[in-house]
Amino acid sequence: MQIYADNAATTKMSATAVHAMLPYLAEIYGNPSSLHSVGQQANEALCDARARIAALLGCNAREITFTSGGSEADNQAIISAAIRGAAKGKKHIISTAFEHHAVLHTLQKLQKQGFEVELLDVHENGLVTPEQVRDAIREDTCLVTIMYANNEIGTVQPIPEIGAVCREKGVLFHTDAVQAAGHLHIDVKAQNIDMLSLSAHKFHGPKGIGVLYARRGVWLENLIEGGAQEHGKRAGTENLPAIMGMTAALEDACANMERNNAKLIPLRDRLMDGLSQIPHSILNGDRTSRLPGNVHFCFEAIEGESLLLLLDDKGVQASSGSACTSGSLDPSHVLLAIGRPHEIAHGSLRLSLSAETTVEEVDYMIEAVTDVVAYLRSISPVWRDLQTGKQTFAI
Amino acid sequence: MQIYADNAATTKMSATAVHAMLPYLAEIYGNPSSLHSVGQQANEALCDARARIAALLGCNAREITFTSGGSEADNQAIISAAIRGAAKGKKHIISTAFEHHAVLHTLQKLQKQGFEVELLDVHENGLVTPEQVRDAIREDTCLVTIMYANNEIGTVQPIPEIGAVCREKGVLFHTDAVQAAGHLHIDVKAQNIDMLSLSAHKFHGPKGIGVLYARRGVWLENLIEGGAQEHGKRAGTENLPAIMGMTAALEDACANMERNNAKLIPLRDRLMDGLSQIPHSILNGDRTSRLPGNVHFCFEAIEGESLLLLLDDKGVQASSGSACTSGSLDPSHVLLAIGRPHEIAHGSLRLSLSAETTVEEVDYMIEAVTDVVAYLRSISPVWRDLQTGKQTFAI
Repeated sequence: MQIYADNAATTKMSATAVHAMLPYLAEIYGNPSSLHSVGQQANEALCDARARIAALLGCNAREITFTSGGSEADNQAIISAAIRGAAKGKKHIISTAFEHHAVLHTLQKLQKQGFEVELLDVHENGLVTPEQVRDAIREDTCLVTIMYANNEIGTVQPIPEIGAVCREKGVLFHTDAVQAAGHLHIDVKAQNIDMLSLSAHKFHGPKGIGVLYARRGVWLENLIEGGAQEHGKRAGTENLPAIMGMTAALEDACANMERNNAKLIPLRDRLMDGLSQIPHSILNGDRTSRLPGNVHFCFEAIEGESLLLLLDDKGVQASSGSACTSGSLDPSHVLLAIGRPHEIAHGSLRLSLSAETTVEEVDYMIEAVTDVVAYLRSISPVWRDLQTGKQTFAI
Repeated sequence: MQIYADNAATTKMSATAVHAMLPYLAEIYGNPSSLHSVGQQANEALCDARARIAALLGCNAREITFTSGGSEADNQAIISAAIRGAAKGKKHIISTAFEHHAVLHTLQKLQKQGFEVELLDVHENGLVTPEQVRDAIREDTCLVTIMYANNEIGTVQPIPEIGAVCREKGVLFHTDAVQAAGHLHIDVKAQNIDMLSLSAHKFHGPKGIGVLYARRGVWLENLIEGGAQEHGKRAGTENLPAIMGMTAALEDACANMERNNAKLIPLRDRLMDGLSQIPHSILNGDRTSRLPGNVHFCFEAIEGESLLLLLDDKGVQASSGSACTSGSLDPSHVLLAIGRPHEIAHGSLRLSLSAETTVEEVDYMIEAVTDVVAYLRSISPVWRDLQTGKQTFAI
């Protein structure tokens, strides 16, 4: 059995998305900026895609900027708000300690440039509260950036409520919705979101394409200067095939969201229940306020990388956390943020399901993880020390 | 007859490139950063593509950064050199007046930040000389950025010689090779190039993908912060399908370059000769030191946009200059840079051929342009004034 359970890292493109993309490779191949018919045919598709994406997010087409992905959108949103803030003497930015590195590293860059970045503590259940945001906002706060759903532990933040606090206080609110888009209902107006980032390959769309939504009136700085594409806010010939694939994938995801989630949530819960039976294991993130497809555990006395490789041998493709940091030996900053000690954070496992996941696959994964954890512990000196009382269990 | 003669704006993807791309959409769809087998299969393809691109450019795989396209690569190269230069107290940058806007607008941004940007005069034939570069280099020059081939008038600069001057003087040399890659022989080591940008969709590869070559030891600033992709210099999940398509397209273009150009150059010359017969027309750019597929003319008393639309009616898709600026009413900065007066610059036409162009198509284009120019002049008050001596011919 081969089970791809790393959908938070990337997804397999759906047939719908592939079919939507294909005609734009070698048939409708014009440059949307060209005045002739071949270009205008491409431009019509581009305008159509923009309107359709806007409709899915609850905004106006003019508020959509196509980017090369979620990271670029995060960078552009944050840099823009910071530049605008600095011009008004506002250099305080609020975020959380468990954002994606596209946010955190951008904030670190701004810190070096004299911005004051305040990272809110995350509760043990992986959530921040609107009250924390309210308490942190100051006169000189120019931006609150808090992710919609966490990419590792899958917790879903109270975005509309945080947005409402920001709106009340007159502070820009950006959310990295890379893990949420296509999986959770998004309505930027109703949810009080000023800027939002998403990435197509997280919802069975193509890689290399994303969206930055910026509410009308929110100023954007160009990360990429050049031609006048994307209302002059993002230069470079538009990646029309990927835009068309993304649009189809997001429509598909939104149309089937209720049905998919009604199927996924019981599977996720079954998987969580199954893995909870493993001794000295702990679920990371809130049990209910989490992505429908996300399961994330820590296992005592387990080294995450060995776990992944042995699971892969059993046909289960999983992750310890973010794919973007998989080369790093450091424990996950997300797990540290929710208070997991280093040694526990190292033994983490993320299983991220898709609408294709079956109950048989879930049961197989429970068995496989249980077996691999038992095996790794059987050869672990740390586990022996824990058993003999030389070390103390943390979980 | 339908003739696509706007290959400088974008090209139709080749079957080779499409076929190289397709398996990476929904079969080998892993995230190259994932540790499991699905991710590692993607990562192997990524490493393979990087090595193949490096081989085609004459550099090491480690010196290749995949970007979302030529504009991003230009921005990153220039910003990086500027930041590094400023750290050493060097804030003088040399470029030319007829660069692509991805370069010029980035330089304008740097100017606002206190950099001194010196734009070299371009000769009437659309060329700059290594001597001009030598004369302009100062103690505090941190970067020379000069395009390999111009995107409007197609002139090819003496890149190896300019590179040699820069190397001798110890100044970084970047070239925007977006129009050259796949069409002209590039060897970054032999040609003394420190940084080079290219874009796949200009050589029958996919849109939304490009390369920034940076010589080992040349420091890069991240435009996009986040994950550790691209040796930590460009965050975001790699656009593997597009990378594979680009790699195949560049291999194809380089393998067939000699044959394609041997066919294209006589066609280009035939088209230039034919259009030169139109009264009061002028070829823009050097006759021989130009891209094999580029023909660019100005016609007196003609408004470029009307010319394009009527040519489109006759089945010829052409451009007045850069697609990236097609929305603008200003005359081309490239034509102004080579000394064309405003009123002449407005009447410009770029025909950019591909290896698929035939002699029949060339002859059809000569006839079509000749007819449309004659028609537009027949209804032009300016032309009447020129004929009656009320105005003076500029050409």
